[in-house]
Amino acid sequence: MSSPQRQLHFNAFLMCSGHHEAAWRLPESNPFANTDLGHWRDLAQIAERATFDSLFLADGPAVRANPEFRPAGALEPTILLTALAAATSRIGLIATASTTYNEPYNLARRFASLDHVSGGRAGWNIVTTADTASAQNFGLDDRPGHRERYARAAEFVDVSSRLWDSWEDGAELGDKAGGIYADVTRIHRVDYEGRYFRVRGPLNVPRPPQGRPLLVQAGSSQDGRDFAARYAEAIFTAQQTLADGQEFYADMKRRARGLGRDPGQLKILPGIVPVIGSTEAEAHALSDELEELIIPAYGLAQLAKTLEVPPGLLDLDRPLPAEVFGRPLVEGAQSRAQLITDLARRENLTVRQLIGRLGGGRGHRTFTGTPEQVADTIQDWFDRGAADGFNVMPAALPSGLRAFADHVIPIFRRRGLFRTEYTGRTLREHYGLPRPGSQFTPARPRGVPEPVA
Amino acid sequence: MSSPQRQLHFNAFLMCSGHHEAAWRLPESNPFANTDLGHWRDLAQIAERATFDSLFLADGPAVRANPEFRPAGALEPTILLTALAAATSRIGLIATASTTYNEPYNLARRFASLDHVSGGRAGWNIVTTADTASAQNFGLDDRPGHRERYARAAEFVDVSSRLWDSWEDGAELGDKAGGIYADVTRIHRVDYEGRYFRVRGPLNVPRPPQGRPLLVQAGSSQDGRDFAARYAEAIFTAQQTLADGQEFYADMKRRARGLGRDPGQLKILPGIVPVIGSTEAEAHALSDELEELIIPAYGLAQLAKTLEVPPGLLDLDRPLPAEVFGRPLVEGAQSRAQLITDLARRENLTVRQLIGRLGGGRGHRTFTGTPEQVADTIQDWFDRGAADGFNVMPAALPSGLRAFADHVIPIFRRRGLFRTEYTGRTLREHYGLPRPGSQFTPARPRGVPEPVA
Repeated sequence: MSSPQRQLHFNAFLMCSGHHEAAWRLPESNPFANTDLGHWRDLAQIAERATFDSLFLADGPAVRANPEFRPAGALEPTILLTALAAATSRIGLIATASTTYNEPYNLARRFASLDHVSGGRAGWNIVTTADTASAQNFGLDDRPGHRERYARAAEFVDVSSRLWDSWEDGAELGDKAGGIYADVTRIHRVDYEGRYFRVRGPLNVPRPPQGRPLLVQAGSSQDGRDFAARYAEAIFTAQQTLADGQEFYADMKRRARGLGRDPGQLKILPGIVPVIGSTEAEAHALSDELEELIIPAYGLAQLAKTLEVPPGLLDLDRPLPAEVFGRPLVEGAQSRAQLITDLARRENLTVRQLIGRLGGGRGHRTFTGTPEQVADTIQDWFDRGAADGFNVMPAALPSGLRAFADHVIPIFRRRGLFRTEYTGRTLREHYGLPRPGSQFTPARPRGVPEPVA
Repeated sequence: MSSPQRQLHFNAFLMCSGHHEAAWRLPESNPFANTDLGHWRDLAQIAERATFDSLFLADGPAVRANPEFRPAGALEPTILLTALAAATSRIGLIATASTTYNEPYNLARRFASLDHVSGGRAGWNIVTTADTASAQNFGLDDRPGHRERYARAAEFVDVSSRLWDSWEDGAELGDKAGGIYADVTRIHRVDYEGRYFRVRGPLNVPRPPQGRPLLVQAGSSQDGRDFAARYAEAIFTAQQTLADGQEFYADMKRRARGLGRDPGQLKILPGIVPVIGSTEAEAHALSDELEELIIPAYGLAQLAKTLEVPPGLLDLDRPLPAEVFGRPLVEGAQSRAQLITDLARRENLTVRQLIGRLGGGRGHRTFTGTPEQVADTIQDWFDRGAADGFNVMPAALPSGLRAFADHVIPIFRRRGLFRTEYTGRTLREHYGLPRPGSQFTPARPRGVPEPVA
């Protein structure tokens, strides 16, 4: 190629035995994968060999699935990703963490620490945590409202950014002879006073290799879009159709531009649950096998929870009842509930059919086909303004990730759309995003000390 | 040996370039060790080769030392220890974390996760965090009072223990054919309602390999002793004299017995800062070299902070002023302040001399001598009822740890007082402590489900 071509980005969204809720029941699956470090190491190394930009772990501070029917409980993501940092050398490591149930000082520090130990590979998927079970693990009867959660999230990220910036680059001098460890004029209190947080600072970790971890966001509600346009550098989004994907893509880039940001520095990655076979028939056989393993009672309970209706309102062999349409927005996962009711209506699905469709990825788009077909639909969205890359959510793990890595990635490499080896060392470099400067780096002359401790 | 002999336990207390405040200025030191993973890996591997029971990181959520004069800022301990778990296979990993500035659900989960990824090597040094700077990073003007902090700590540990126990052993069935992932009668809500915390549970991590992480405590105030007698399985303590060490040892074992605990299951490890040379002269030369590198202004400020007096009250060339004696107890680090004023009075030290004595270990006992002399004083305390082992705090790192590992450990092996190889796999096994059962494991018959999610 003579001129550099726009490149795809791929994130490997890892989940235990896979995104399909019944994947743990496949003959190949290790049902205890959730706490088996060997399983996770294997996944991370498959993704790194395929030069994925990053891998990613979702999270919430509660048992959310019913453990009777599906593996529940997961290692805390910053811990697990630190363990995976040691098993890899280049791939980015994106952990989900809640702004509603953490304190900025602690969390900013953990991400700074992960960025240090991984050599600049940390990313933070910022979530506000929509469920009630989580609230009840933190002294609350119910979650805060949707808007309230996002207001707190905005403050949380503002404080965190100040903390990451609080040590300017090069503040540590290490002047042994002079007995000066650091230039304290370059280490700053943050003195944040907001509605939710008061934080003095500075952070007790020197500025991390990436300056700040990569900031990722996944909510697609109006509050979520406002938030993402301001703060996110990458968005993981659930979009079922090309048209919806294009609308979302254009809207987010427009919002970013409206805030004075370079829209190229906001990467949009829709989720895809690829179910891959060497022939179409083989792919559909795998899809059928997974669907047959679904436990309807489980799927129905999860659906009722997302839609925030009593399970008794849903009948497996009838369409969604009228009550779930046209209601006020739920306080929980707004955009996900909307996407599910839209899908049910668009395709006129019974509850059982809807559960089958959702089994693969809880509202993310499932695509069943050959490697070429998977590659073609990804490229179609990429070429037609719906994606800068994809959040790859294998239905079963490790097999689905291996199939994507071994059979889909090579297609994009042949097409010149994806790297054949890592050219950068940091997660930001993989996504083509700049390293931010410290907001405290001044034009003022040096030498006027501020008290920091 | 025909009958098993009581064995020493050794914990390697790691700190950046060493416990001596001027260690970073030594020619051998890497002044940027605090964020250099290679440095920490090196230390962990030295300690593991010497079959130390554990390594340990102190911590607090604030910049506490003045970074102008000493490396400040440190990677968060659960993250750093996870990275070190990957570089080792047997040694225990003890992280300090604050009960005042964390939430039990988050912290219990991180320790459970560290225990899983390390194969049962996690320990938690429970601290209440005495300083004001930390409070100001969490929305408070000042720290809570001493008694208040310990009351919260007690609830915190109670909640955490329930969370670790909330999945009984073997709750995960992984029955693929039957479609039953877990026996939900063995996964429990904790429904804790206390003065400080309300937590519903269950934890979202299956029960960790050790059941619970090893619980360690270091406070020696009256509140600290009460707390440790109830909860701690190992105590890291600062004792300057054999008599004080014996008093503390006997008192703690008596308190544990009084609470119905087996006193053998409470291990007491005083701190020692060994400054080791192949001859006495060499050891004293190293000690002098370190003392000459002390920056008096720094030592004075730190001393004033611990004693909670204005720095202006202290004069380098005079004894501590009368005001610091016989005051009411400080709200911060009570026992440490007491130990320092006792030391100054006992030895009639000027402030400058006191700073020199404290430079090595902030109130821990410094011992300068040959490997045989270091071994002899350790064995003396061990034989005479002052210690079950020692918390080894090398003045300079890695050299001081290497000297202890290469020259002191072999002496104890020859004397039959320390293991020559690991016999257990978990931290609890190294310390000879049992794996606790889950408090939820009932005598009742199985099969009555409780709702968990």
